[in-house]
Amino acid sequence: MSEYKSDIEIAQESELLPIQSIADSLGLSSETIEYFGKYKAKISYEKIRDLQKNEDGKIILVTSINPTAAGEGKSTVTVGLGDGLKRLGKKTIIALREPSLGPTMGIKGGATGGGYAQVLPMEDINLHFTGDLHAITTANNALSALIDNHIHQGNQLNIDQRRIVWKRAIDLNDRSLREIVVGLGGPVQGIPRQDGFDITVASEIMAVLCLATDLSDLKHRISRIVIAYTYDKQPVTVRDLGVEGAITLLLKDALKPNLVQTIEHTPAIVHGGPFANIAHGCNSVIATRTASKLADYVVTEAGFGADLGAEKFIHIKSRSAGFQPEAVVIVATIRALKMHGGLSKYELTHENIFALEKGLENLKKHIETVTQFGLPYVVAINRFTTDTKAEISVLEKWCMNNNIPVSLTEVWEKGGAGAVDLAEKVLHEIEKSQYTFSYLYDLHTSIEEKIRTIVQKVYGGRDVEFSVKALKQLQEFEDFGWGTLPVCMAKTQYSLSDDPQKLGRPKDFTIHVRELKPKLGAGFIVALTGEMMTMPGLPKQPAAYRMDVDENGMAIGLF
Amino acid sequence: MSEYKSDIEIAQESELLPIQSIADSLGLSSETIEYFGKYKAKISYEKIRDLQKNEDGKIILVTSINPTAAGEGKSTVTVGLGDGLKRLGKKTIIALREPSLGPTMGIKGGATGGGYAQVLPMEDINLHFTGDLHAITTANNALSALIDNHIHQGNQLNIDQRRIVWKRAIDLNDRSLREIVVGLGGPVQGIPRQDGFDITVASEIMAVLCLATDLSDLKHRISRIVIAYTYDKQPVTVRDLGVEGAITLLLKDALKPNLVQTIEHTPAIVHGGPFANIAHGCNSVIATRTASKLADYVVTEAGFGADLGAEKFIHIKSRSAGFQPEAVVIVATIRALKMHGGLSKYELTHENIFALEKGLENLKKHIETVTQFGLPYVVAINRFTTDTKAEISVLEKWCMNNNIPVSLTEVWEKGGAGAVDLAEKVLHEIEKSQYTFSYLYDLHTSIEEKIRTIVQKVYGGRDVEFSVKALKQLQEFEDFGWGTLPVCMAKTQYSLSDDPQKLGRPKDFTIHVRELKPKLGAGFIVALTGEMMTMPGLPKQPAAYRMDVDENGMAIGLF
Repeated sequence: MSEYKSDIEIAQESELLPIQSIADSLGLSSETIEYFGKYKAKISYEKIRDLQKNEDGKIILVTSINPTAAGEGKSTVTVGLGDGLKRLGKKTIIALREPSLGPTMGIKGGATGGGYAQVLPMEDINLHFTGDLHAITTANNALSALIDNHIHQGNQLNIDQRRIVWKRAIDLNDRSLREIVVGLGGPVQGIPRQDGFDITVASEIMAVLCLATDLSDLKHRISRIVIAYTYDKQPVTVRDLGVEGAITLLLKDALKPNLVQTIEHTPAIVHGGPFANIAHGCNSVIATRTASKLADYVVTEAGFGADLGAEKFIHIKSRSAGFQPEAVVIVATIRALKMHGGLSKYELTHENIFALEKGLENLKKHIETVTQFGLPYVVAINRFTTDTKAEISVLEKWCMNNNIPVSLTEVWEKGGAGAVDLAEKVLHEIEKSQYTFSYLYDLHTSIEEKIRTIVQKVYGGRDVEFSVKALKQLQEFEDFGWGTLPVCMAKTQYSLSDDPQKLGRPKDFTIHVRELKPKLGAGFIVALTGEMMTMPGLPKQPAAYRMDVDENGMAIGLF
Repeated sequence: MSEYKSDIEIAQESELLPIQSIADSLGLSSETIEYFGKYKAKISYEKIRDLQKNEDGKIILVTSINPTAAGEGKSTVTVGLGDGLKRLGKKTIIALREPSLGPTMGIKGGATGGGYAQVLPMEDINLHFTGDLHAITTANNALSALIDNHIHQGNQLNIDQRRIVWKRAIDLNDRSLREIVVGLGGPVQGIPRQDGFDITVASEIMAVLCLATDLSDLKHRISRIVIAYTYDKQPVTVRDLGVEGAITLLLKDALKPNLVQTIEHTPAIVHGGPFANIAHGCNSVIATRTASKLADYVVTEAGFGADLGAEKFIHIKSRSAGFQPEAVVIVATIRALKMHGGLSKYELTHENIFALEKGLENLKKHIETVTQFGLPYVVAINRFTTDTKAEISVLEKWCMNNNIPVSLTEVWEKGGAGAVDLAEKVLHEIEKSQYTFSYLYDLHTSIEEKIRTIVQKVYGGRDVEFSVKALKQLQEFEDFGWGTLPVCMAKTQYSLSDDPQKLGRPKDFTIHVRELKPKLGAGFIVALTGEMMTMPGLPKQPAAYRMDVDENGMAIGLF
């Protein structure tokens, strides 16, 4: 709407503090950070080690209902909640994922919150930031080049070129690179074989970087990555190739967390961003942990809905890192709930109580999931101007009747002021909490059993059906000794089921697992359900068409 | 040799000054630079504009004989000469190219000088530095994705998918990506077509960035880039696609020059690095010009020998930017001269006066070339421990007899102290110079005539032979109105001729031009002679195998 400013206008009108002054507020001297321009910095490994003696702050995890085309504004609420906690005098850090250039140039135009709840400098964070994603892309592709070179130079490791599972990566939306043939042109141009590019955030290097606790752990994880199988069908790892040192060297700065600020000068650590469908969808362990050592409250988010991001945050990220959230915020919008109640995205501007009430079933399932983990929660209604009083009232009453803590937030328009109520309610839930946290599955159950547990307890499905290939892999993976790893479900984000059309709260459905993928560096087994998109395409009118820059380097057309 | 320290050991033992203190020595306040860590900074556009009112410093161009497998150490001499001038009390800046990760991970292991004549921090400069090459890679590939998407979405511009001349790029040595097929997998995966990746330094984006004077000029140049031809064989440019804004936005920080320091704390601007065979092989205009506004002497280098880099520095870079070198340093080594005299690289450790004398013919031709331009020069003999007294004596006598200014430099071992004599001689030549500078060709002669002039005057060849395709293109390009652009010769660096086997000073040879390529963004026409390598491969034992990093991020195995 024309009366509102765009995100980039609001961002460019905001006055940033020098990053040192944000660092000072956290007790980070100029010796312990490295500047990237005036408003970004990386925190040094020495300081991070030194911080380990500090007490842990409390982690608040922001998740949502299943996302819809209507948009939920999870990052915006995360930023607003952090600003809100700061307004209540709480020492707070926001821990977010780094945006990927692919969606930025494609549809999104930016991914750093919105309105008056943004992290800054938004142009830099949305473009190259501190180069982490480029380092990951380069590490990924250096490994590809070293694999192909190994085969070209004699293939001492006996790698079956038809069974190379390591793909190339690029941080762009480029459908033409999904399926390619490389190595054409004759004997001096390498070995012809099928290959493809994933978007960088889907690279296992990204997942590994986000789960590593320090550079040594990073190197160790990289060495475990399965890159191919031999002609005898035995796994080949990075260690077999002997290049974990070089690949880790390429990531020596990318692993350091990035410090920035919100419009309200709340410190934010923006670091790492694996896909939430093929990978675990959370910012880095090193960022979350560093934040929790520097502040009393850390507000962080996980990708997509609670069925994907939150489940993985708990079962994969937190379990690996040894911390747990103290409370969960479940973001919903009236628009999105109406879509879950059956409306199309063109019908959302009109009041529709019936659809809203029907859509609440989706929210209810995610609340149940969070409760199963024994975590306190608050529902955050991210208010839109099209929400009617009657709709808001229905929602609030439903929460009251069901004893569900809820807060109406207006963070886009009001920044932290629009989330003070949410912040108070979250603090209240943490304080009064009498829940006992527990995982939903034990690592020592079989891969099959773990998948079944997630499907039944988190998705509310009836059963799991494994393809012939997946059944074979279940056995193989247990034989390879990979059975005690957690499972990373690759499922559509739009539905609790594996069918993106089934919105709301589908029941009695079966999840179809068609393939497993070992991600030994990350330390999980991916279970693919349906077709997962690991390389998005550009739309007919990419956001790039609107982008520009003036002669001083001021960005135009990010939003 | 084991008694010597490696380059990385010397670099890591050196104590760096905070980059602000280097900036202070140039009058650059903290408001005018942007830090990238403690020892790297970018200079702001505002400051660069502000500097234009300053007087120009004197540019000293370092070039060499035709490179051989023996190595010449041109960057090392460039750094040493800068340090030497500083020791003489001259306000000096060194302006170098940025290394590419491909050769670093492949054979070179690093490209920031050597011994005690290095630019620091060498680990960072050799790895991701300030992210310029990653920004260029991303800009290049965003353009590719936008081209393929345009065709996939209906191809309004009528692009002939068989005549797309824009290739993808990656900053790695990866032979498997030289010839590929993209867009496989069916109608939703794009249009199948042949494509390939060049190494990033061979991308026209790199050449454009290195010739642009500011962001507006950069955008203008990008808009002119020819990406494809229509089915009617008319050129299609970036402007036709309408994405020059987005591509320039991706380069908004990459265009800012990078300030670092040598081991002796001499300021160095390391920025840009196009290939010297397919492109013009010089660091950026914006870096060289900014350096000349900040210092009295700028020492800069151009790629490969004087037949390639120096010719292009003068005819392309300097002509476009409006400055000229005041003097040229021609680097030679006794080892390399002996190879030009017929020895193999395994025979270089033994004294061989005959081969040396024969090899001097190569040096002589490059001296003649520099003299034709009307530029004063000094020959710098980059001393190696295997050089014998007799060999050095022969070389010095030959120079004396021919009235050739020469200096024996020992920069690897002694840093600036090893180049004080060279610095004095260069200053002397500049002072006494009575030459008059002139270009060897006029821009208004035909493309064919320009090529012939370079072949005859710079290479010492007899004639040029154009392939049928090239002959057709000569006509087409003149018809498209591209005839007044300078020519960028793509020729092997190893020989004055187009046959890499013909070392020394071949005569009466013909240069074979097989194809022309329009680089309208860069503003030159590439003339391809022989097979040009735009994507190197990795050797059997890549340098990456030796690379590692310790738990504090200290690099191991760069050298």
